[in-house]
Amino acid sequence: MHDRQSFALALVQMSCGIDPAANLDKAIDRIEEAAKAGADVICLPELFRSQYFCQRVDPANFELAESIPGRTTERLQKIAKGLGKVIVASLFERRGPGIYHNTAVVIDADGALLGLYRKMHIPEDPLYFEKYYFTPGDLGFKTFDTRFVRIGVLVCWDQWFPEGARLTALQGAQLLVYPTAIGWHPREKAEFGVSQHQAWETIQRSHAIANGVYVAAVNRVGHEGPADEESFIGGLEFWGGSFVSDPFGNVHSRGSHDREELVVSQCDMAKLDEIRRNWPFLRDRRIDAYGDIGKRYA
Amino acid sequence: MHDRQSFALALVQMSCGIDPAANLDKAIDRIEEAAKAGADVICLPELFRSQYFCQRVDPANFELAESIPGRTTERLQKIAKGLGKVIVASLFERRGPGIYHNTAVVIDADGALLGLYRKMHIPEDPLYFEKYYFTPGDLGFKTFDTRFVRIGVLVCWDQWFPEGARLTALQGAQLLVYPTAIGWHPREKAEFGVSQHQAWETIQRSHAIANGVYVAAVNRVGHEGPADEESFIGGLEFWGGSFVSDPFGNVHSRGSHDREELVVSQCDMAKLDEIRRNWPFLRDRRIDAYGDIGKRYA
Repeated sequence: MHDRQSFALALVQMSCGIDPAANLDKAIDRIEEAAKAGADVICLPELFRSQYFCQRVDPANFELAESIPGRTTERLQKIAKGLGKVIVASLFERRGPGIYHNTAVVIDADGALLGLYRKMHIPEDPLYFEKYYFTPGDLGFKTFDTRFVRIGVLVCWDQWFPEGARLTALQGAQLLVYPTAIGWHPREKAEFGVSQHQAWETIQRSHAIANGVYVAAVNRVGHEGPADEESFIGGLEFWGGSFVSDPFGNVHSRGSHDREELVVSQCDMAKLDEIRRNWPFLRDRRIDAYGDIGKRYA
Repeated sequence: MHDRQSFALALVQMSCGIDPAANLDKAIDRIEEAAKAGADVICLPELFRSQYFCQRVDPANFELAESIPGRTTERLQKIAKGLGKVIVASLFERRGPGIYHNTAVVIDADGALLGLYRKMHIPEDPLYFEKYYFTPGDLGFKTFDTRFVRIGVLVCWDQWFPEGARLTALQGAQLLVYPTAIGWHPREKAEFGVSQHQAWETIQRSHAIANGVYVAAVNRVGHEGPADEESFIGGLEFWGGSFVSDPFGNVHSRGSHDREELVVSQCDMAKLDEIRRNWPFLRDRRIDAYGDIGKRYA
């Protein structure tokens, strides 16, 4: 438990260019900006060091991966320590020859690398060829006890799975953070764009409600890939919409769909206990009756 | 699997008076009305035969319970057979001396009582003293293969637990129905009413999204209990808002907060497969990593 009564959360909604070094520089600029604005915990979008390379299946993209700890985490650790802020970052991890993960790291305000979360649920869809690149995580669901708040980190596709949110919340998480790279196919946006975005926000708000925790999603913005709208290779328009939900599903702050920005929210620790007292779902779980959750289909 | 390409769902949003016989007569009138309107599956709110007696702890209320099968199910079975419609009804079940359940029944279009679901998650809160009345269900999560659609039934408080929805969907449910009795405390409504209702709808839409199934909630309307707004015994204003969500969380139809009405929706079977193909969450569940769902807290 933390003595602090609140923490300020900043989500860095940003676009990502071709040059990884420039993306990292931009992210660090935004982290410094967020710190000046009073943020305690600062979160970057999924795989922010590069464009979303999973749009294509190309072995050359494995060159983008890096070891953890490594140069990026070392640089972010220095920044975190210098600013006295917590940083949540998402990286393409080279764990060993042929073993790559979509990994999030949590760096405490003293610069310590508290640990890794390796994305557990891996998508594979047109323009999201993640099963090609990422070995499924083997660390399970995790929380990280930072100076300001106990954080659970999950990544993008994880957000569609209530099990991940529940298992992380049961470890005492007070905040779930989802670094994300999700967007519209240009040829789908007109027909399905609104309901895709709504479903994405709705299911994450539901994790806040079901578990009585703060939930934050931090997404990138901007179009990446070819602009050809007639084929599957029309690229992706990342939809931004980064947001923070309180433990009862109320969205406190929300980013635009098309601009880089900091999405900042003050989070009140007292709400965690207050909401769970008034809506005591965790009291009533039927843990005797959930065994079949481990089955594929019944 | 069903050959039918769609089914019409009707939710009977109704108020409940003091006289159980009158409530049953009203429910049957509404069922007949729904059948005339073309409904295939007709659902009644939680414990529709009486007012929501759980507002008070009073042993006399056990007199409201009835055996299943019993007089109410027999009458509903005749109606179902006569109309050729499926009925989902919620009853206060007397199973044996001192063993009472909050039970839902599914009656097929040929009048067969397909089975029972006994509410698994039991609330206990000011004005919702259900742990006093209801023994927790011991039948687990269930589905019922009706003439028109494979239905999973859960009851009210169950709707806050993603595990119940998931376990029911994994049994092949195409539609989840939640008979409900939820309302505002008059003294809370101004401050919390909107977010309470929003959270309730959001988490149920999330079950549709996570599982790729239709979800319906059928609630009662009207104020029951004393009108004293200054105390906990101010009664409850049941908030209606019965709704049907498609398998991607889009609300197709929604009842008012204050009127009796039929909420009718045409549900397209093709959407079930179409949405699960485009958002293949069930493909990617990490069934190797969910074991701790059976723990209380980690």
